[in-house]
Amino acid sequence: MQRVALVGYGITKFGRREASWRDLASEAGKACFESCPGVDRKGIDGVFVSTADEEPYLAAVAAENLGIKPRIATKIENLCSSGGTAITIASGLIQAGLVGTALVLGVEKMYHKKTVPLLTWDFTRGGILIPATWGAVYAQKHMTKFGTTEEQLARVSVKNHRNSSMNPHAHFQEPITLENVMNSKPIVTPLKLFDCSSRSDGAAAVILTSEEKARTYTDSPIWIVGRGESSQGATFGNINPLYVTWPAVVMAARQAYHAARVKPSGIQVAELHDAFTINEIIQYEDMGFCEKGKGGKFIEAGESEIGGKIAVNPSGGLLGRGHPIGATGVAQAVEIMQQLRGEAGKRQVSGAVKGLSMNLSASVSTASCIIYARD
Amino acid sequence: MQRVALVGYGITKFGRREASWRDLASEAGKACFESCPGVDRKGIDGVFVSTADEEPYLAAVAAENLGIKPRIATKIENLCSSGGTAITIASGLIQAGLVGTALVLGVEKMYHKKTVPLLTWDFTRGGILIPATWGAVYAQKHMTKFGTTEEQLARVSVKNHRNSSMNPHAHFQEPITLENVMNSKPIVTPLKLFDCSSRSDGAAAVILTSEEKARTYTDSPIWIVGRGESSQGATFGNINPLYVTWPAVVMAARQAYHAARVKPSGIQVAELHDAFTINEIIQYEDMGFCEKGKGGKFIEAGESEIGGKIAVNPSGGLLGRGHPIGATGVAQAVEIMQQLRGEAGKRQVSGAVKGLSMNLSASVSTASCIIYARD
Repeated sequence: MQRVALVGYGITKFGRREASWRDLASEAGKACFESCPGVDRKGIDGVFVSTADEEPYLAAVAAENLGIKPRIATKIENLCSSGGTAITIASGLIQAGLVGTALVLGVEKMYHKKTVPLLTWDFTRGGILIPATWGAVYAQKHMTKFGTTEEQLARVSVKNHRNSSMNPHAHFQEPITLENVMNSKPIVTPLKLFDCSSRSDGAAAVILTSEEKARTYTDSPIWIVGRGESSQGATFGNINPLYVTWPAVVMAARQAYHAARVKPSGIQVAELHDAFTINEIIQYEDMGFCEKGKGGKFIEAGESEIGGKIAVNPSGGLLGRGHPIGATGVAQAVEIMQQLRGEAGKRQVSGAVKGLSMNLSASVSTASCIIYARD
Repeated sequence: MQRVALVGYGITKFGRREASWRDLASEAGKACFESCPGVDRKGIDGVFVSTADEEPYLAAVAAENLGIKPRIATKIENLCSSGGTAITIASGLIQAGLVGTALVLGVEKMYHKKTVPLLTWDFTRGGILIPATWGAVYAQKHMTKFGTTEEQLARVSVKNHRNSSMNPHAHFQEPITLENVMNSKPIVTPLKLFDCSSRSDGAAAVILTSEEKARTYTDSPIWIVGRGESSQGATFGNINPLYVTWPAVVMAARQAYHAARVKPSGIQVAELHDAFTINEIIQYEDMGFCEKGKGGKFIEAGESEIGGKIAVNPSGGLLGRGHPIGATGVAQAVEIMQQLRGEAGKRQVSGAVKGLSMNLSASVSTASCIIYARD
């Protein structure tokens, strides 16, 4: 089977932006083409726009704005994991020979709206539709069952804001202290404001191509070596009654590790989906970075810091980089590319050869995992 | 490369429905599984929902409602050609081995909205955003350049309403006369009400699988033997200054014919995208059913009728079956499956072995063509 490589990347500054989604998409797309001058826009025959934006026909509009006339242009919408799903789909179509070279472009404009997307389909929650409610259920259960502390949760946010302060594209540019997190506004007990990721405006793009073409475009292709996806449902009440593990994460990670023939210990850098601090801790466990229940200790021991056992969210993650829904999964790929190529500046993880992204949706009912490797 | 087969289909009644999109999706999905009892829902590892509905995370919701926990569930949105694009993507992912068996489900709920989707991104139109404006430009140009008449346009609508009167799932169940069309309300000169397709509520579904599995599921698999896609832009002013041909249609058809190793004369039944009557006439020409400029004569001679040279839109097409945007491309596949299996009832085209669908978007800036064959 054909191997698939990432050969270019581009990303906008995340945050509160005056730009429209069109402007953001064009900005990330242009940066992406500039990063890989060998790729001719005429050679792009797939444009996959990952977004939860309501505007119809948005992929064709984005392609036109970038001067691309592809075979296939389409929106891929899978809420917060749209980006991971779009990269997986694009890579599969390249393997099938339907697409030669693809632009995957994640974009979201959120500050023009009054609210974050609510989970209106989820009748199992009664009237409580804001995402922090499910994060809090998991946090409470983890604290009760495993003795995880609010301080351990807070450390995730401190680490990720420290990392984002070294990422010029991140939404949040200032480091924060443990006290800042602990004293921040309560949202849903035990989660406070800094335990929660922020809506953001932003776009990110990567160019994917076949092995044959990759060698002509760049000397430093980054290979997709494993993929895993799992959709366990949509409503909170239908996913898992235990509230300490996510079957979608376990299954997607297992598929990806198996395909990449790698164990968790073979990964040096990971972008996890820290929509809330508790999410990163449970993902340490569900992905095999540490034992179940030991996620709090893992962050406390500094094992997920740059220089620790496995650097998690060197970009700042959703907590530090911001979470423009459809752009997040693609931004994860951009960070892993930069890390594996040694182009991550102050936040560079030294000697990383394999990296991983985990992109999640809607109370972790869906998970999309991709493992990348450099030559 | 792995061959891909359609092994099941389901469709709802199209029209003004009291049902929600969820109900419609479940109705088509259930009918689909009933049509192919060998397929276990647990074996479905891809759910691709084609729709222009704004609701996020809709594929995961549809999958949950149908009791499916797939690897990949995602919305595919490409306006009126979402369905064709979704089938193409699903078939590619099966070939890549990422998905074994997929449900492609097209659904649209339109009657709860006050308007059809407007082309708000298209600054080249000034304030004229309703789709019939571009249809009228093409109709006027075709009449001026080739002598096509309003009566010839009207014949397309008469034929397709006659066909839809034999399709129990079609929106419009009554045949209409040439006089009905000619005397119907003017929309944009020369197009009248019956020259235009109608919004509709409805859903359609097909099950796709690999060659190996297809043989275990059914004795009458329908094979995808050719695919073509082309996205030429998004705005009307950026597509084609000639207004008598659509480059997206020509390119998508060429790719599909080439892949299927078939000429237009080798196709017995076609579902074309007759958003307006002029569209069907220009597609006869652009797809090689007749020479450029001869589309009016082609319908007049009865060559596109059941029993003619090539039966076009035996389902009733968009004009007769209705046009629930995201469901249309999948409904085309359902019709071709029924025709190639000899399960089309009163509207059966006799002896059809190869069929074709052409699904279009937004002033035909995008085209998605699929060629099917029976064993």
